[in-house]
Amino acid sequence: MTRDYRVLIDCRDEKGLVYKISKAFYDFGLNVEKNREFVDAQNGKFFMRSEVSGKFDPKALEAELKLVLPEKANIRLFEPRPKRIVLMATKESHCLGDILIRHEARELEAQIVGVVSNYDSLRSLVEKFEIPYVHVSHEGLQRAEHEEKIMAELEKFGEIDYIVLAKYMRILTPEFVSRYDERIINIHHSFLPAFIGANPYKQAYDRGVKIIGATAHFVNNNLDEGPIIAQDVIPIDHTMDWRQMRNAGRDVEKIVLAKALKLALEDKIFVYANKTVIFD
Amino acid sequence: MTRDYRVLIDCRDEKGLVYKISKAFYDFGLNVEKNREFVDAQNGKFFMRSEVSGKFDPKALEAELKLVLPEKANIRLFEPRPKRIVLMATKESHCLGDILIRHEARELEAQIVGVVSNYDSLRSLVEKFEIPYVHVSHEGLQRAEHEEKIMAELEKFGEIDYIVLAKYMRILTPEFVSRYDERIINIHHSFLPAFIGANPYKQAYDRGVKIIGATAHFVNNNLDEGPIIAQDVIPIDHTMDWRQMRNAGRDVEKIVLAKALKLALEDKIFVYANKTVIFD
Amino acid sequence: MTRDYRVLIDCRDEKGLVYKISKAFYDFGLNVEKNREFVDAQNGKFFMRSEVSGKFDPKALEAELKLVLPEKANIRLFEPRPKRIVLMATKESHCLGDILIRHEARELEAQIVGVVSNYDSLRSLVEKFEIPYVHVSHEGLQRAEHEEKIMAELEKFGEIDYIVLAKYMRILTPEFVSRYDERIINIHHSFLPAFIGANPYKQAYDRGVKIIGATAHFVNNNLDEGPIIAQDVIPIDHTMDWRQMRNAGRDVEKIVLAKALKLALEDKIFVYANKTVIFD
Amino acid sequence: MTRDYRVLIDCRDEKGLVYKISKAFYDFGLNVEKNREFVDAQNGKFFMRSEVSGKFDPKALEAELKLVLPEKANIRLFEPRPKRIVLMATKESHCLGDILIRHEARELEAQIVGVVSNYDSLRSLVEKFEIPYVHVSHEGLQRAEHEEKIMAELEKFGEIDYIVLAKYMRILTPEFVSRYDERIINIHHSFLPAFIGANPYKQAYDRGVKIIGATAHFVNNNLDEGPIIAQDVIPIDHTMDWRQMRNAGRDVEKIVLAKALKLALEDKIFVYANKTVIFD
Repeated sequence: MTRDYRVLIDCRDEKGLVYKISKAFYDFGLNVEKNREFVDAQNGKFFMRSEVSGKFDPKALEAELKLVLPEKANIRLFEPRPKRIVLMATKESHCLGDILIRHEARELEAQIVGVVSNYDSLRSLVEKFEIPYVHVSHEGLQRAEHEEKIMAELEKFGEIDYIVLAKYMRILTPEFVSRYDERIINIHHSFLPAFIGANPYKQAYDRGVKIIGATAHFVNNNLDEGPIIAQDVIPIDHTMDWRQMRNAGRDVEKIVLAKALKLALEDKIFVYANKTVIFD
Repeated sequence: MTRDYRVLIDCRDEKGLVYKISKAFYDFGLNVEKNREFVDAQNGKFFMRSEVSGKFDPKALEAELKLVLPEKANIRLFEPRPKRIVLMATKESHCLGDILIRHEARELEAQIVGVVSNYDSLRSLVEKFEIPYVHVSHEGLQRAEHEEKIMAELEKFGEIDYIVLAKYMRILTPEFVSRYDERIINIHHSFLPAFIGANPYKQAYDRGVKIIGATAHFVNNNLDEGPIIAQDVIPIDHTMDWRQMRNAGRDVEKIVLAKALKLALEDKIFVYANKTVIFD
Repeated sequence: MTRDYRVLIDCRDEKGLVYKISKAFYDFGLNVEKNREFVDAQNGKFFMRSEVSGKFDPKALEAELKLVLPEKANIRLFEPRPKRIVLMATKESHCLGDILIRHEARELEAQIVGVVSNYDSLRSLVEKFEIPYVHVSHEGLQRAEHEEKIMAELEKFGEIDYIVLAKYMRILTPEFVSRYDERIINIHHSFLPAFIGANPYKQAYDRGVKIIGATAHFVNNNLDEGPIIAQDVIPIDHTMDWRQMRNAGRDVEKIVLAKALKLALEDKIFVYANKTVIFD
Repeated sequence: MTRDYRVLIDCRDEKGLVYKISKAFYDFGLNVEKNREFVDAQNGKFFMRSEVSGKFDPKALEAELKLVLPEKANIRLFEPRPKRIVLMATKESHCLGDILIRHEARELEAQIVGVVSNYDSLRSLVEKFEIPYVHVSHEGLQRAEHEEKIMAELEKFGEIDYIVLAKYMRILTPEFVSRYDERIINIHHSFLPAFIGANPYKQAYDRGVKIIGATAHFVNNNLDEGPIIAQDVIPIDHTMDWRQMRNAGRDVEKIVLAKALKLALEDKIFVYANKTVIFD
């Protein structure tokens, strides 16, 4: 049976890697549908993403690749399947709604297994799409207590590939973040590293910038400093107060988040050195 | 004789200002070619820029406007004439060269009265255009000494409307800045407020951003924190090291600087509260 | 009682119009919240949009404006209320879904009174939002017959301010168009006037362009030649076939359509000479 | 001695090409600095561009590649050297001046061997840079006669890699074009295929578009229909007449032309099926 596989490799760079990998593909009789590679010469790192098809034994191919690649090479070789994702939100619906519509239209390689929010206000929107909505209020709780409750809910969803913070407006603790390392995608409503932290539109207004933007990034333990996946901006002018900036910014937020999410779902992102290599 | 005038007004906001101003124009028999106004409701400030023409006594019009406008209104009323500008540069030629070409093509409402640089390397380029080039080396000099020498050279140029820092890579002292308040335009090679200070492309590379940009702003006494006039960005990706970013960034730097310079030359910028109102 | 009004004026240009209009506002004791005007010198046309507030008799103001303005001036003066809109679609859901989400989030000054489609496939999506969905199949019908049936359904919705063609993929007859003159907004999936007609993404692929785009416009009787309201583009490259272009283009289509729709809902568009004046 | 080479391959697609090529590189002991490949599955075409370095016999490598690649494969293998280019212009200086400044700053992998114009007005600008300027007036001449004179002048420059039409406003005959097949780069002042032919800004104004743009393309025998290399756009609005559009468009014209020129100079463009594959 012909199978479609994705092959993701990252390892120490050395001479002949493309040759060795493409030889393995050739020897296994694979069709290479797509190939992207990148060498970070400065850090001596090699990255490659391939889409291959053919009748072959994936275990044997993986073993062969292990043999020819440098020690400690990361080799991921798998048949694409829809990722299982959880969305987290607070009160704003534009990013959440956009993902729900894309999901409904089968635009995403994903199954939304649930939505978690610290408010109940988005329940009606989410339940229209027959997706479980879990309200975990933070009121009266310590941050750690609140997150424990969330994590308990997340457990119930079973395996989770990505958590998408679709305007979830609370800071996550290191404990939470480390449990889902490189699997939490956030949308920040500024072109980072400008305007880290609270109310970036207010900050942008006060500074008098002429562009505003949005940044989708993996979450790490430094607020708004995780690896950036996608960014975009829109022009603004002096006539806009910060609320108008916020309204205008919604479109760029949702588009940038969706773009980053798709890259993740299609396994097009490598993370290293707090940066991303994107094979789009 | 029919005259073309620009009228720039900024004052405390109050009811009926547009009526009062347009009445004055009407009573003086003026044609209003262009009108732009803006009310900053939050700060209670009114701004207006008009282009008018007609046969009239400008002194009388100014007096009339003073009469009907709130106390302490700033009223500027003048016939447009080419501004006198000085360019300052260090070693890179892309911004400087771009302005020289625009000047040569009479694209700018300006006369370049001279170029000052702390290196001699751009002399040959500048002198092609028969523009005076003054080399004021900073070597072996304290910052204040160096600037005194520069200011002495600037004096020789006569009246100066704007100083354009076309990649002049040294920080100016408060003394220098205050002498040319709101008349020094700088191009910074990042989308401020991201990457203030030295080598923003290196900073951008280290942070792993997906867009880089440029910001043209008036210089004040806080490094890279003056009122922003224009900004733009370009997309980048992981394949670019910081030198490639710098090369790619040159085009956006020169376009943004030229855009800001034109706005200044055409009297389309109001500065207040460390921001700009732009009537483009 | 203080009222908020929008005032839209277009007329033959002549000297002193801003003065006369702002005098009327002043004499009626109005606060002018916003003012935008434009003179098309070439065609001798004047356009003005104001947002005013105050306690006043709108009939009297309108009479006063009629008195001071040139003959045949169009004066519209009204309290803003949500517009009644109908969406028309075929099978694709990205534009439709985007508008539904915005509507649900109360982002639009509109009430969606119904959705009409020539297929039944979007019913489930629309009915989630408790909006009437009418399926009017075109199968086996002449174009005129089909449209008669649609018009009959539209009648049932009562008064309609705008019809939004959210990827409605059939050409409308002059009879239909003239009934809703300047009230039908379409999204065309190219940067017009490039790639008029069927499958613009296929046309774009065949031509080998490096950007694709979308155009929102009012519909008139020349296919894809109505007054343009908004346009935007995205970069593409040689790796994309036309299906990938179509997928990538969906985001720009929905953003451009939403932008145009908002401008219409907020009465920021004047149409003349097959063009638009936009006071955004 | 270590040499840097560029290797450009295009051929019929078949299984294992990357393997075979990278094997050859590996067997010759080359370092692969950069690798880009593309398969046009629809047309069964394979494209690859590599930058390699090492001590090797280029003739032997070429022979080896010929051996392993499909019949009729195009293999180009060479040490990069500055290309010899001629600029052609009419009266406008913005594109020409931009290239002159870039050339002066050694930003281009090129030597400008001369400038040819049908007017004499740009002589002073060009001669500042000590570049030969040839005025070949078209007055009183048939198109063919005029071009013969131009070709005679071009002959005198010796070998020419590219002719850059930097706002050369005359249509070239098939004879001229075929002599420099895929070596003439033009900048057209619209986002093609919109607004082919004369005065695209006027056409854009008449149509009422909200974006204008520029297209750099190779010239073929159908006016403005050659393979597109680069395009970009800028937003415009109703306040601009066509002259203002033209002025605003100059920046995007010069940036797009320079971008296309650099791609050509760095051998990053493959042309086929009236399209371009760009390895940027």
